[in-house]
Amino acid sequence: MKKVAIGIDIGGTNTAIGVVDADGNVMVKDNISTPSHGDVNQYVSDLSAAVKELIKSVKLLNSETEVLGIGIGAPNGNYYNGTIEYAPNLSFKGVVHLVALVKEQFPELKAVALTNDANAAAIGEMIYGGAKGMANFVMYTLGTGVGSGIVVDGNLVYGHDGFAGECGHTTLIPGGRLCGCGAKGHLEAYCSAPGMTRTAFEIIARDNASDSILANKSFNELESKTIFDAAEQGDAVALEVFEQTGKWLGQALADTVHHNSPEAIFLFGGPTAAGDYIFKPTKASLEEHLLPIFKNKIKIIPSELKAGDAAIIGASALVYKELE
Amino acid sequence: MKKVAIGIDIGGTNTAIGVVDADGNVMVKDNISTPSHGDVNQYVSDLSAAVKELIKSVKLLNSETEVLGIGIGAPNGNYYNGTIEYAPNLSFKGVVHLVALVKEQFPELKAVALTNDANAAAIGEMIYGGAKGMANFVMYTLGTGVGSGIVVDGNLVYGHDGFAGECGHTTLIPGGRLCGCGAKGHLEAYCSAPGMTRTAFEIIARDNASDSILANKSFNELESKTIFDAAEQGDAVALEVFEQTGKWLGQALADTVHHNSPEAIFLFGGPTAAGDYIFKPTKASLEEHLLPIFKNKIKIIPSELKAGDAAIIGASALVYKELE
Repeated sequence: MKKVAIGIDIGGTNTAIGVVDADGNVMVKDNISTPSHGDVNQYVSDLSAAVKELIKSVKLLNSETEVLGIGIGAPNGNYYNGTIEYAPNLSFKGVVHLVALVKEQFPELKAVALTNDANAAAIGEMIYGGAKGMANFVMYTLGTGVGSGIVVDGNLVYGHDGFAGECGHTTLIPGGRLCGCGAKGHLEAYCSAPGMTRTAFEIIARDNASDSILANKSFNELESKTIFDAAEQGDAVALEVFEQTGKWLGQALADTVHHNSPEAIFLFGGPTAAGDYIFKPTKASLEEHLLPIFKNKIKIIPSELKAGDAAIIGASALVYKELE
Repeated sequence: MKKVAIGIDIGGTNTAIGVVDADGNVMVKDNISTPSHGDVNQYVSDLSAAVKELIKSVKLLNSETEVLGIGIGAPNGNYYNGTIEYAPNLSFKGVVHLVALVKEQFPELKAVALTNDANAAAIGEMIYGGAKGMANFVMYTLGTGVGSGIVVDGNLVYGHDGFAGECGHTTLIPGGRLCGCGAKGHLEAYCSAPGMTRTAFEIIARDNASDSILANKSFNELESKTIFDAAEQGDAVALEVFEQTGKWLGQALADTVHHNSPEAIFLFGGPTAAGDYIFKPTKASLEEHLLPIFKNKIKIIPSELKAGDAAIIGASALVYKELE
């Protein structure tokens, strides 16, 4: 029997679905719209139909395939209750009992579980990636926002209410930049991809840096990939953006170490593709902010999850934790 | 049989030892000097003699007494290794295998364990205090420094190296006040008892507040108890100290919630004796800094451990976790 797990990643506009093998490879995948109509029953019906099609196609490839379960990553996903609760970017209102609804469609499956996407990524790293065999580690996902998943003694920390691991909303600079959540100075406002754009614009404005490559891009055009390319060409603004982002990120990671003392912190997402540009200043700043007992102990490692499919892969990994 | 546990609290100048009953009451206690001579074997010999005297006196009270074990709270205490490692305020150099040395003196005991004092206080709260039955909570100890102990899923978080829970050294204000550890802007530099004195002096200097009660005390004289008494008399500087300390503490506690989402955070130590003066602004600031999904959920509660004996009681509680 070839064992596979289904991974579902629910985003604001798009829901990605994939069948993942035991090594963390996506065998087949599909997309449906995350609806704006707010009718969750209709959505679950569409989602289930798409999942069943994918399972059918995998079984055509190998009739001996066993589907172990379904893992779902969703904003404001509550692991304990199997619910999505008051997610600001989804059309479903209030508390949606998604796991119960999906189980109705797949009564034969032993495991259906849900958490937020960063927690799912942490479990993905543990099941398929670089955190295999690590009992204490943390995953930071840098993208549109900054997410995190914390593992203590081999288990994801869900906290008393199922929502633990929102480190993107720790305060980096009191009274600082406006965060998407409405508060000020959060890590996410500095070290997400849009945060890097904001940093670039601050530096350009401060230095009147009209000779920077980045000075030819609008705020809405500038992406972390562009900043990386500019850094590769020695652009001073771009280099300072990475230097400063790393300084900030290292400070935040030190706070995480002072809480939970992980063996490693994995970094995932667009900005981390810049390699040493972001990892070097992050590591230096982390060490600078650590108590002596923690110095030169904590590994800062790029995630091994494949960028494009990481959300699906992470979600699917939930199934294995559920069956433990 | 009356079951008791020995609690030992190792401080920079003094080591407190007590026999604690199953309800968390200290039955008998004693003190020895924490030596400045650096000879750990001599120290363990003196310590063991004092413990044996205490056990003898408890057995005179009730010959049916069973000693379950010894729990030790010590700076830079490493739970996994039973060691004290590079503690800056102790005369012992490098790594001291204290648990092994104590076990040699008490081969009949099933449990000898060690951690730092704030972790021990968290376990004390869980075994004897207000955290009974709570699976996810955090303890903050405010005193000369700021310590913390984190409990996830019913167990203390030790992290990969045994040193987790150093939240006093998270960064509150980047580039801010000098912390005792040598870094800048740490929570401990603001919300410890000496941190409150610094805040009082800043406010007095800023406002030229010669009419404040606190303006009659030197920096080295001023204690958090004095600030509390002044607040009770309506002293504007003292009231602002508590208001500001609570704002800072609430910000830090929100970071802890965004990491581990505890059900409750317990506050222990001198400054917390001021009750509402410190709890009210702390709670308000916490709520202000929380993501919507965490708002109005987290309890901020005074520790139920008795102030004078808390370190002994907390250390003794380690024994019960060890025997689980």
